[in-house]
Amino acid sequence: MVGKSPAVVLLSGGLDSATVLALAAREGFAPYALSFRYGQRHLIELTAAEKVARAGGAVQHLVVDVDLGVFGGSALTSDDMAVPHHDDVAELDGDIPATYVPARNTVFLSLALAWAETLGSTDIFIGVNALDYSGYPDCRPEYIAAFQRMANLATKAGVEGDAVLQIHTPLIALSKADIIRVGTSLGVDYALTHSCYEPDARGTACRTCDSCLLRAKGFAEAGLSDPALAATAWGGGG
Amino acid sequence: MVGKSPAVVLLSGGLDSATVLALAAREGFAPYALSFRYGQRHLIELTAAEKVARAGGAVQHLVVDVDLGVFGGSALTSDDMAVPHHDDVAELDGDIPATYVPARNTVFLSLALAWAETLGSTDIFIGVNALDYSGYPDCRPEYIAAFQRMANLATKAGVEGDAVLQIHTPLIALSKADIIRVGTSLGVDYALTHSCYEPDARGTACRTCDSCLLRAKGFAEAGLSDPALAATAWGGGG
Repeated sequence: MVGKSPAVVLLSGGLDSATVLALAAREGFAPYALSFRYGQRHLIELTAAEKVARAGGAVQHLVVDVDLGVFGGSALTSDDMAVPHHDDVAELDGDIPATYVPARNTVFLSLALAWAETLGSTDIFIGVNALDYSGYPDCRPEYIAAFQRMANLATKAGVEGDAVLQIHTPLIALSKADIIRVGTSLGVDYALTHSCYEPDARGTACRTCDSCLLRAKGFAEAGLSDPALAATAWGGGG
Repeated sequence: MVGKSPAVVLLSGGLDSATVLALAAREGFAPYALSFRYGQRHLIELTAAEKVARAGGAVQHLVVDVDLGVFGGSALTSDDMAVPHHDDVAELDGDIPATYVPARNTVFLSLALAWAETLGSTDIFIGVNALDYSGYPDCRPEYIAAFQRMANLATKAGVEGDAVLQIHTPLIALSKADIIRVGTSLGVDYALTHSCYEPDARGTACRTCDSCLLRAKGFAEAGLSDPALAATAWGGGG
């Protein structure tokens, strides 16, 4: 790793963050992948994250425990709220959905900041996307800019003025189809990724949650079939 | 609790946050106390936090697991680094000490933000202090202002524009002696609080870590004796 700067890459095991990992590596960083056990309904995405980290050449992959489930307030962490399902992607109305986890990106970026500071890294990568973004407030460019400003005041490096922390959001202006095209050109194996909010016990995607619908739309618009669906027993092809 | 707005109060079990809890209650908020099991060397402070929360009239006290120890980089979470000890408070030189936990306040405030959002609260209280503050970058007013700006872009309320989140830092301009005077006037029982970074197995304060020295200086300047020390078996009186 001589000469390579370390960068912390937030890795969910989904399609977006797998692409971000590949982009961080292409930019010449030594990627340190960070995932969370945060009280999500299923841990299939962490298994996916582990495979993606290995395939993507992460120097290290850390899974940190942070229990967001204790606060409730989201269909992704609370059994009291249902994950919404739709027949068609056109039904997604742009409102903030029940799957929004309060302050999740803020918590995840804060933990990435903690690791970056101990690694001596000034670079954090996150796969937020302002276009096909499911309506989450903490995916907007103005939010990311404000986080970066705060982060530069939060740390030793900021006080000493000898480093400037940067939050990289290489997907922010891309459509899902663009992301898939970019990742495919970089050799990302999307068969390893997992996007579904509510898979069955065998890990099979539901195809009707917001995340499945946006993923299917992306592959369709990119003119590609989804290798993760092709790999399932029931033979779906996206 | 009719008519009272909920506020999230970060509660470490130390002297400062116990005072903040009392101030939040005096301002008319219904306080929700939040503490963390974050990989700290000892859990005595969490026992203290529980007592302080009860005595201070917290509506609820939540202890959230978030493992900052996995990142290393601090004497408070890593056995590889020693907690510094000094003979005298004058030896504290203003540099960022080994007890600094990377991004700790950012992580804690982010989790407070998650709880505030699920509670429908727009108020978070934190006992940071820019005067007798041990040299931590994330205790400075400009850092807090930047966090508040970011937080207002991070949440549903920020998007919908119908609420403005405020980070309250009532101790920011106070000396340790001022804090103790204010808290004493509000009836805070400092015998319940714990400040020491490296107590012995019985929970007795070391009297020589930065936190013990700043606490002792505060009580001395306020012309009061420290009831937590008076309560120990060896009969110290501050």
